Amino acid sequence: MQVLHMNKGNGDTSYAKNSTVQRTIIYAGKGIMQEAMLEMLYSNVMELESMGIADLGCSSGPNTLSVISEIMETVEAVNCHLGRRLVSEFRVFLNDLYSNDFNNVFMSLPAFYKRLKEEKGLGFGSCFVSGVPGSFYGRLFPTNSLHFVHSSSSLHWLSQVPVGLQSNALKCVNKGKLYISKSSPQSVMDAYSLQFRNDFSIFLKSRSQELVPSGRMVLSFLGRKSADPTTEDSCYHWELLAQAIMSLAREGRIEEDKVDSFNAPYYAPCTEEIKEEIQKEGSFTIDLLEGFEIDWDGGVVTDIHTPQGKLLVGQRVANTIRAVVESMLVSHFGIEADVMDDLFIRFADMVGTHLSKSRTKYINLAMVLIKKG
Amino acid sequence: MQVLHMNKGNGDTSYAKNSTVQRTIIYAGKGIMQEAMLEMLYSNVMELESMGIADLGCSSGPNTLSVISEIMETVEAVNCHLGRRLVSEFRVFLNDLYSNDFNNVFMSLPAFYKRLKEEKGLGFGSCFVSGVPGSFYGRLFPTNSLHFVHSSSSLHWLSQVPVGLQSNALKCVNKGKLYISKSSPQSVMDAYSLQFRNDFSIFLKSRSQELVPSGRMVLSFLGRKSADPTTEDSCYHWELLAQAIMSLAREGRIEEDKVDSFNAPYYAPCTEEIKEEIQKEGSFTIDLLEGFEIDWDGGVVTDIHTPQGKLLVGQRVANTIRAVVESMLVSHFGIEADVMDDLFIRFADMVGTHLSKSRTKYINLAMVLIKKG
Repeated sequence: MQVLHMNKGNGDTSYAKNSTVQRTIIYAGKGIMQEAMLEMLYSNVMELESMGIADLGCSSGPNTLSVISEIMETVEAVNCHLGRRLVSEFRVFLNDLYSNDFNNVFMSLPAFYKRLKEEKGLGFGSCFVSGVPGSFYGRLFPTNSLHFVHSSSSLHWLSQVPVGLQSNALKCVNKGKLYISKSSPQSVMDAYSLQFRNDFSIFLKSRSQELVPSGRMVLSFLGRKSADPTTEDSCYHWELLAQAIMSLAREGRIEEDKVDSFNAPYYAPCTEEIKEEIQKEGSFTIDLLEGFEIDWDGGVVTDIHTPQGKLLVGQRVANTIRAVVESMLVSHFGIEADVMDDLFIRFADMVGTHLSKSRTKYINLAMVLIKKG
Repeated sequence: MQVLHMNKGNGDTSYAKNSTVQRTIIYAGKGIMQEAMLEMLYSNVMELESMGIADLGCSSGPNTLSVISEIMETVEAVNCHLGRRLVSEFRVFLNDLYSNDFNNVFMSLPAFYKRLKEEKGLGFGSCFVSGVPGSFYGRLFPTNSLHFVHSSSSLHWLSQVPVGLQSNALKCVNKGKLYISKSSPQSVMDAYSLQFRNDFSIFLKSRSQELVPSGRMVLSFLGRKSADPTTEDSCYHWELLAQAIMSLAREGRIEEDKVDSFNAPYYAPCTEEIKEEIQKEGSFTIDLLEGFEIDWDGGVVTDIHTPQGKLLVGQRVANTIRAVVESMLVSHFGIEADVMDDLFIRFADMVGTHLSKSRTKYINLAMVLIKKG
C-alpha cells in the first residue's frame, strides 16, 4: 500500500497525462451517479445543513476534481429546480493512498474554487475540500459523516497481494505470470477471489459506519461478465504485460525469479462475488449493478488496421497502464528507466498487434448501493 | 499566496531540516496549549462524540505532527484521569497554503498512526487526519465544526504585500529595504499595520464561524514588545537580509530596482494592535496574551565568541530563514541557485557578526482566545 501510486507530476508518463480510460469510465457512469444523487436528494427533502461527499481513490490529474464538479452540478440543478438552497455547505473529501500526489491536486484547487464561484454562484464558504490520505480498506471518516460516496477505477486494486500467494512455497506457483492466467492453477484463482472478498467486505463495513442511513455509494471498477476469471476481458492486459516482461527476462535484463514471485494486487471480480459480499455484510441494498464495455484505449477513434493506427493505439494503452503500474514494477523488479522504456515499447507493440486481431475490452462494473436504516 | 511556501522535501535547505526555531516556539508554548486544552475539556464535561482540531499553517516537517501528538496526549491524560473516554473520535485538520508540501506530511502519517496505537492505545477509527489546503485568511471549515484551533509561527505572514505599498507610486518608497526599517517613512509603517489589522480581523471572523461556542484558539507568532515597529527585536533580521541583498545588487548580480519594489508580506505586531482587533471583531475573549524571547537560532548552546561558533550560529540562522523566504525571493528576484547560495553565505556572516555583539531575539507572542457564546 505504501508502494502503489499513480505516476506523479505532469510529465509524459504521468497519470495526469495518461488517464483517458479512467475519464471515459467516469463519463460512462455520469448518468448513474446523477440519478443516485437525485434520488437521494429528493427522497430526503429535509434541508441538509452540511453534506459530506467522498471520492475514494481520487488519484491526481484532470479527473480528480471533475467528479466533484459533476456532483456539485447535480445538487445545484436540484437547488434551482426547488428554488431554494437544499444544501448550505459541502464537505468534500478526496481520498487516496498516502503516496498519492496530493500536492498536484491541491495546486489545482484555487482554479476549482474560482470556477465554482463563477459558474455555479457558490460563494465563499460553501464548499470545503480536504485531502484524506489512507486506505479505503479501513476507516477513513468519522461515524455518520458522509452522505454520498463515489469511487471509480479503484476497487479492483486489492489491499495487498493475495495472502494465499505470499508464503514462499506458494508464491511461485504462477510461473511467468503477473495475474490470473489460463495456465494458473486453481489455488491462484481461489487466493485472488478470497482476497477480493475479504477486502470488499472490509470496504463495505467501513463505509457503512461512515455513511448516514439512506446515504448512497456509486462504485465502479473493472470486473468481468463470466464466472471464469481467465477470459480475455478479465485478464488479457496482464497476460500481454507478462509476455513483455518475460521477453526482457529471457535477455537477462529482468530476473526471471522475480517474475515468478510477482502477483499483482488486482482482481476483476464477477457480479456474483460482489452481490454475495454485499448480502453477507448486510448494511447495503443494491439499487443497481450493471457492466459495460470500455475500450483499452478509452475509445479514441483510430483506425487500428493501418500500421500507424496500430502503433498509436498500442502506445496509448501502454501509456495508460504504465502510469498505473510503474511504481509497483519499480518496487518489485528494481527496473531502471531505460529498461522500463523498453518494456513499454514491447508491450505497446504486443497490444497493437493483439487489438488489430481481436478487440478485447475491459468490463467496467457500476453499482449504486444504499445504506439501510 | 500561491508563491509563499516553506522549502520542500528533506534536503539540506529544506524547511523540514531547518525548523528548529519553530520547534523551540512550539515547545515554549506547550504549557499554554495544554492548559487551554484542559480548561476546555473540564469546563465542558459532556462527552464529545467527535472533536474537531485544526492546526493552521502546519507546514511540512517534524513539527507538523508533533503539535497534534501533544494535543492528543493531553486529551488522553484527561481520559485517564476521568477513567473514561471523553472524546471518541478526533477529526484532525492540517492546514497550510495550497503550495505546502502535503505529500511529505501524508507520507509520515502511517508511522504517526502506528505510534498513536502503540503509545496511546488509540485504536482503529479514533483519529482521522486530513489536509485542508487554503489561506486561513478566509473560511476553511464548515460552520461550528471545530473545538480547538492551534497556529504557531504563521500569523506573522500577511495575506499579501500591504495594499498601500502595491501601487507603482508607492512601492518604491522603501528603497533598499525588504521590510520596515529605521529609514522607512511613516506611510510604510502605516501600510503594514493596516494590512495586519485587516488580515487578523478576517482570521478572527472566519474562525469565529468555524469554532463552537467555548471553543479555544491557541495562537503564537512573531511580534514585538514596543509600540515602535523599528526596534531590533521586531525587524533586524530583515535589515540584515536587505544588506546582504544590496551587496549583491551593488555587484550587479541582483537588480537594485527589484530590491526597492520588494516588500515582505510579514508583520510583527505589538500586543495593542492584537488586542484592539480582537475587541473590535468581538467574538473572542482573551484568556491569556504574553510575549517571550526566542533566540534567532532557536537557542542551541554555542559559544558565539569563537570564530567557529560565530560561523555556526550565523549559518543556522541563515538556513532557518532561507527555508522560509527562498520561495518568495525566487519569485520576486528570479535569483538563480548559485546567487542564492552566495546571498545566504553573506547573510550568515552578517548575522554571526551582529549576534557576537548584540544578542537580538525574536519576540514570540502567545495567546489563548475563547469563543464567546
